[in-house]
Amino acid sequence: MKKLLNRVEDLVPEAISGMVAAHPDLLRADLPLKLILRREPRRPGKVAIVSGGGSGHEPLHGGYVGVGMLDAACAGEVFTAPVPDQFLAATSAVDAGAGVLHIVKNYTGDVLNFEMAAELAQAAGITVESVLINDDVAVRDSLYTSGRRGVGLTVLAEKIAGAAAERGDTLEQVAAICRRVNADGRSMGMALTSSTVPAVGKPTFDLQDDQMEIGIGIHGEPGRYREPLAPAAQVVERLTGPILEDLPFQTGDRVLAFVNGMGGTPLIELYVVFNDLARMLERQDIAIERSLVGNYVTSLDMAGCSITLLKLDDELTALWDAPVHTAALRWGM
Amino acid sequence: MKKLLNRVEDLVPEAISGMVAAHPDLLRADLPLKLILRREPRRPGKVAIVSGGGSGHEPLHGGYVGVGMLDAACAGEVFTAPVPDQFLAATSAVDAGAGVLHIVKNYTGDVLNFEMAAELAQAAGITVESVLINDDVAVRDSLYTSGRRGVGLTVLAEKIAGAAAERGDTLEQVAAICRRVNADGRSMGMALTSSTVPAVGKPTFDLQDDQMEIGIGIHGEPGRYREPLAPAAQVVERLTGPILEDLPFQTGDRVLAFVNGMGGTPLIELYVVFNDLARMLERQDIAIERSLVGNYVTSLDMAGCSITLLKLDDELTALWDAPVHTAALRWGM
Repeated sequence: MKKLLNRVEDLVPEAISGMVAAHPDLLRADLPLKLILRREPRRPGKVAIVSGGGSGHEPLHGGYVGVGMLDAACAGEVFTAPVPDQFLAATSAVDAGAGVLHIVKNYTGDVLNFEMAAELAQAAGITVESVLINDDVAVRDSLYTSGRRGVGLTVLAEKIAGAAAERGDTLEQVAAICRRVNADGRSMGMALTSSTVPAVGKPTFDLQDDQMEIGIGIHGEPGRYREPLAPAAQVVERLTGPILEDLPFQTGDRVLAFVNGMGGTPLIELYVVFNDLARMLERQDIAIERSLVGNYVTSLDMAGCSITLLKLDDELTALWDAPVHTAALRWGM
Repeated sequence: MKKLLNRVEDLVPEAISGMVAAHPDLLRADLPLKLILRREPRRPGKVAIVSGGGSGHEPLHGGYVGVGMLDAACAGEVFTAPVPDQFLAATSAVDAGAGVLHIVKNYTGDVLNFEMAAELAQAAGITVESVLINDDVAVRDSLYTSGRRGVGLTVLAEKIAGAAAERGDTLEQVAAICRRVNADGRSMGMALTSSTVPAVGKPTFDLQDDQMEIGIGIHGEPGRYREPLAPAAQVVERLTGPILEDLPFQTGDRVLAFVNGMGGTPLIELYVVFNDLARMLERQDIAIERSLVGNYVTSLDMAGCSITLLKLDDELTALWDAPVHTAALRWGM
């Protein structure tokens, strides 16, 4: 295992500590509880948003804490759900009287622990709404999931819901916007290599030198099938075909097109993928109105990519364009 | 070789095409000449800035074209200098009457071809200044370089010179600021794995499973030494020690601290490195006033990192903070 780290058991707190040291104006940490929190004081009346999940997907979620996105992120150990106490502490820390939205990727551990925290928070007088993100069209049920997995769309949901909260929407409205993003977005991913979980020290799965896996999950969960390495244009068709059929996306739709790297794939390859995606969507008369290209929801050092498409209307576009200032996503400020 | 690409010979133009497709508001391409250009019309009287070099270091340089940074970037084949015609065409395309600054990483091919283009441009009546970036303290002379290599500091030089041009500085002033950045910044890098050049199809060098290379270049040029894998904190000492000694940086200095990933290293590890760097600088009473953490000057899919420190004063800090809108660096707009 070749990684830049110190003791495996210190990886998550040290990464949190590094992120806060790099963004002291924006973030503060609760290191014992592995929380990343917005430094700015709570703004009375603003709906607060909490997300979180296993580590190893950076910049998700801590990199999205800041103005116009999340108020707090809870980090579990690598590929392991945070415990209810973390979610509860984050919820209490950020509530400003207008309630708290939990954005939950659909993995069994996250769902159960977020639910327990929501019940405890509500018992303590905090109003909580939860939105489940389950955008991965690759497989139904999987290693850690009942139903579809939550993957790339999570970033778009956190950005758009965050903008709705920032403009003063009520908890019900912010949750409704977030559910709309989940309803109108779809994703699918692929891997060229496995990631290596530091505590395990060897690759999660074996993939032959001439093979790729289509429909992989962000923890290395099995995908739909393995097949021989193919050119990028074919990879794009393998991922985008099921995405388009599922919603379905149609001629005349306007979309946000998101090409995400899994952590070990460099930007030059992601732009080749985006180029093929743009050509494919053009052939279908689907207009790319906004785009995002980079490593935003990773799987440690896995090489591979995912594609996410979100159907846009004027409101979602305006919320996407609204100012944001986080470690990993920033514009307008 | 496991990469997301189509035909190897189409990699660079397809990546350029994908970058422009993802940022149509910001960028336009001259695909035959492999140029990425600012879409906005030339602003009469603004000094223009051109950079470029071999591909494989994305987002360098195309990802830094836009408002407040570069006016054009020239892309060579992977790890191969662009030809003089490319630099000349870019220089002519962006000159707005106030002259053009060439920011040149110190590799022999880039230096010669930029020089030839500068002579041809000057013969055609365009005033050109060139600034050489040679911040890598690891080795003197190397595989492609006479003198020190230009690495991570290039991003900071392009940002700060770009801000000086944007505020209306003369060519002489912009060049002077850029030279000051080069004088006051130092870098050093390391690799956990080799990159694989697509046209070659196998790793550039072999590095045993329990070894790392300290002082590596961004094309896989040999570094200072190989040694057994060490904890991140020791890696940081190996890189930062020579950087601090070289300038030298001193107690009381204020710096911009930049932890750069080589393309195959995920963000969680880069933040661990930043955490160790912050502790080391704190022990030396050097204040981190600004920071940058991510994959900004890569070496294809190489795993590893580099550290760059730039001594700041009020002017450099203000220019760093000035608004920028490029594909890879954006704030304030």
